Amino acid sequence: MARINHLAIVVEHIEPALKFWRDALGLEVGQVQRNEAEEVEIAFLPLGESEIELLAPLNETSGVAKFLARRGPGMHHICLEVEHIEAVMQRLRAHGVELLNETPKENEAGTKYCFIHPKSAFGVLVELYEPGQRGR
Amino acid sequence: MARINHLAIVVEHIEPALKFWRDALGLEVGQVQRNEAEEVEIAFLPLGESEIELLAPLNETSGVAKFLARRGPGMHHICLEVEHIEAVMQRLRAHGVELLNETPKENEAGTKYCFIHPKSAFGVLVELYEPGQRGR
Repeated sequence: MARINHLAIVVEHIEPALKFWRDALGLEVGQVQRNEAEEVEIAFLPLGESEIELLAPLNETSGVAKFLARRGPGMHHICLEVEHIEAVMQRLRAHGVELLNETPKENEAGTKYCFIHPKSAFGVLVELYEPGQRGR
Repeated sequence: MARINHLAIVVEHIEPALKFWRDALGLEVGQVQRNEAEEVEIAFLPLGESEIELLAPLNETSGVAKFLARRGPGMHHICLEVEHIEAVMQRLRAHGVELLNETPKENEAGTKYCFIHPKSAFGVLVELYEPGQRGR
């Protein structure tokens, strides 16, 4: 287990939230991009070896939109970076931990990722992340 | 803004939660201590330059016990380490951000800290932390 890769925070809209995180608190904004697959707009705010990620829904039916409707804005998930995601997933399964995807997903940067069911992690949505060569 | 100092997660009891964080996920446990002032037991799990902190209530009337009763277990607050906490607090006030304590509190290690009201941080409880000489 290498580090906290990012902490994801759900907000209604990116720009008002940046008034707090960027303007008041003084964090840098790395980039803001649309992720059509996850139906979110994401602002990346590097912070030491980690990032704060602000997620805003692109529509009213996405997972993030449903989270907002149910719980309001706030912390959504914590992403832990690992070296060998399959080995960690196998170890988790051996301990009876439920995973939301049984094999790692892979994004366009070659990063492998999976989510752990919050009921196995005491209410926390935990993402695991093995950065791909193109994502380093 | 230097780094994420810690992410605090509220659980009902420390030991069952360690079955996930320590045994299944493989994180090291730095120490487990009682904080009588905050009425919590805390397990510190170092992770890169940050820590995961598991908080369990020592009684049924503490702030953490009320959080558990209201929201269930889950992420409680994010703590950001800063170099000069008073300067950051002044900047936040100038941007209309509401602080939960108007002057920094100080713990026995000499660390200065304060909390930002979640309504000013879009639903996130944010702690600021300036480590004292004894806490480094």
